[in-house]
Amino acid sequence: MTDGMHYAPIARAQAPVCAPGDFTFAAMSLDHGHIYGMVDNLVQAGGVLKYVYDTDPKKAESLQRRHPLAQIANSPEQILQDPDVMLVAAAAIPSLRCDLGLQVLAHGKDYFTDKTPFTSLDQLHQARQAVLTTGRKYACCYSERLQNESAEYALELINDGVIGDVIQVLGVGPHRLNAAARPDWFFRKALYGGIICDIGSHQAEQYLAYSGASSATVTMARATNFANPDYPELEDFGEFSVVGDNGSSGYFRMDWFTPDGLRTWGDGRTTILGTKGYIELRKYVDLGQQLDQPARENNVYIATQDGEEQHQVTGKIGFPFFGALILDCIERTELAMSQKHCFTAAAICLQAQQMADLDR
Amino acid sequence: MTDGMHYAPIARAQAPVCAPGDFTFAAMSLDHGHIYGMVDNLVQAGGVLKYVYDTDPKKAESLQRRHPLAQIANSPEQILQDPDVMLVAAAAIPSLRCDLGLQVLAHGKDYFTDKTPFTSLDQLHQARQAVLTTGRKYACCYSERLQNESAEYALELINDGVIGDVIQVLGVGPHRLNAAARPDWFFRKALYGGIICDIGSHQAEQYLAYSGASSATVTMARATNFANPDYPELEDFGEFSVVGDNGSSGYFRMDWFTPDGLRTWGDGRTTILGTKGYIELRKYVDLGQQLDQPARENNVYIATQDGEEQHQVTGKIGFPFFGALILDCIERTELAMSQKHCFTAAAICLQAQQMADLDR
Repeated sequence: MTDGMHYAPIARAQAPVCAPGDFTFAAMSLDHGHIYGMVDNLVQAGGVLKYVYDTDPKKAESLQRRHPLAQIANSPEQILQDPDVMLVAAAAIPSLRCDLGLQVLAHGKDYFTDKTPFTSLDQLHQARQAVLTTGRKYACCYSERLQNESAEYALELINDGVIGDVIQVLGVGPHRLNAAARPDWFFRKALYGGIICDIGSHQAEQYLAYSGASSATVTMARATNFANPDYPELEDFGEFSVVGDNGSSGYFRMDWFTPDGLRTWGDGRTTILGTKGYIELRKYVDLGQQLDQPARENNVYIATQDGEEQHQVTGKIGFPFFGALILDCIERTELAMSQKHCFTAAAICLQAQQMADLDR
Repeated sequence: MTDGMHYAPIARAQAPVCAPGDFTFAAMSLDHGHIYGMVDNLVQAGGVLKYVYDTDPKKAESLQRRHPLAQIANSPEQILQDPDVMLVAAAAIPSLRCDLGLQVLAHGKDYFTDKTPFTSLDQLHQARQAVLTTGRKYACCYSERLQNESAEYALELINDGVIGDVIQVLGVGPHRLNAAARPDWFFRKALYGGIICDIGSHQAEQYLAYSGASSATVTMARATNFANPDYPELEDFGEFSVVGDNGSSGYFRMDWFTPDGLRTWGDGRTTILGTKGYIELRKYVDLGQQLDQPARENNVYIATQDGEEQHQVTGKIGFPFFGALILDCIERTELAMSQKHCFTAAAICLQAQQMADLDR
């Protein structure tokens, strides 16, 4: 079977997609560390980080140390009113992400937020209106696909027809709680939105990407606190299922139960079942890998009519979303991710969270 | 981490549990090949197979060749009326399993059927009544646990508290269709009962076993034919979710989409998430194992607070159910599996199938 490796990825160059100065952006509301990856990847794809800003100067300084050519802005207004700034990247407290986005759009700039993009359907509605009114983008860094090479490679394989028509997507997203290192907002439901709204947003996005469905109905949702009485508003477990408008389905489980003994933060998996085969991603570790080695990421397993294949794609795929987003901002296209896709993923996780909340 | 292997199984002897002649049984209605494993394991555990019978003499002869001391009965009556026979093992067409069981119980013998034990809730109701009336057992070979060493080992680990309280059970049961080799009844829904009723019965049983729930509510169920128009009554995909009376939940997917290139018939998995760790069973193959090797079965992966462990338990656990069933039949105990557990698993898969049927 080792002879028949049809689907080994061809490593691709990660070159800037534009000339220096073609795409200038800023970073503000640095509440979640995800902002580092978002900024790093935009810079690597050709973006110029002009400003960083946070009400907490330490957070701004910390990001600036990594990007020393950026200036620390004196105020949000300095960023919002600078015509050089085409896009604002931010990782605010989740419940504040929409308000910031509405401001950014109102100032004629595109917005790129950490996930989850909203904590209520009302926020989503407001953002939809603002996008229509302003013509600007409300983009979201659904990082469990956009910053994961195995997840991006799976999409290529599916789009190439390797597993036929997608029937089902099954995603498991365990995370290490690490409670002591988390900010206060992390444990307040009104601020983080609930576990399905939060880490379930990744899963909803991956469902749409892999299944090709353009919308989906939530068929089951549940969220609860099993074992963290000290944090009564934390949901440490959530799950939901969907049926898409193309007949495919999805089931997703998310939790804060990664045990301390696992060698990485979470054993995230995605299994995509198609009519002609299936793909399993062991994204951050493979429990079957040698025990005394560091976690091996981006494991892609494929089974088709022709055989089985195993690919480890770290460093081979890169993060094509970021260059595509920059070009979308410059050229006003939607090749990285359509606004509809971004918002539909948000709608699914918000609807599932709502169903889970009603059921408690 | 390799130093800290706490959970390596101690290989146990598979000795007969009774003296020759203490437990005599018969096998009839040999419609599904599962009867071979059921009989072999009862014999290995100390049972004596006195008769085999099927309306098709070839099927009876084939099983007799494997157990040459057994006689081919002249009729079902010869078996049912022989006071030596304590139990009848059978793998009838699913829709006929209950009728046969009712006859067996009415003749004062215990019944051991291939899964699925019923194709309707009405049958289950009749069997419940018959068990109460006769005091006999209506047992079922839920083989994806009872004939799987990794699955039985997982139960031991859970019962030992290795992963704390069980929060969720996630089971995936893909199977190779192999349509040409299947009998006609396999494709007639009234006879096989639907994919959730059929292969979902394994999943319902494993949910109860691992979660410790004593009952469960079906929260979502779906079954459909995605890609087999030549067999319109075949459901090639099914899924359902449950919430147990102890607050745990389960999600299960079953399908006939194992691609021809997979080195075994199905990549069955069970993942059990607990408050203190999790266990993943890669039951029949590990996609990450060396490609040019035969499928390695019974892979047990454990992650806890203390670290990760990997155990391959083929030949180490055996199938303790069969000896326990024999002793239960002799001593009128319920140590192998309670009648309530057996019937509750059936109820769950039948209720899920009904929900899926109503939704089509």
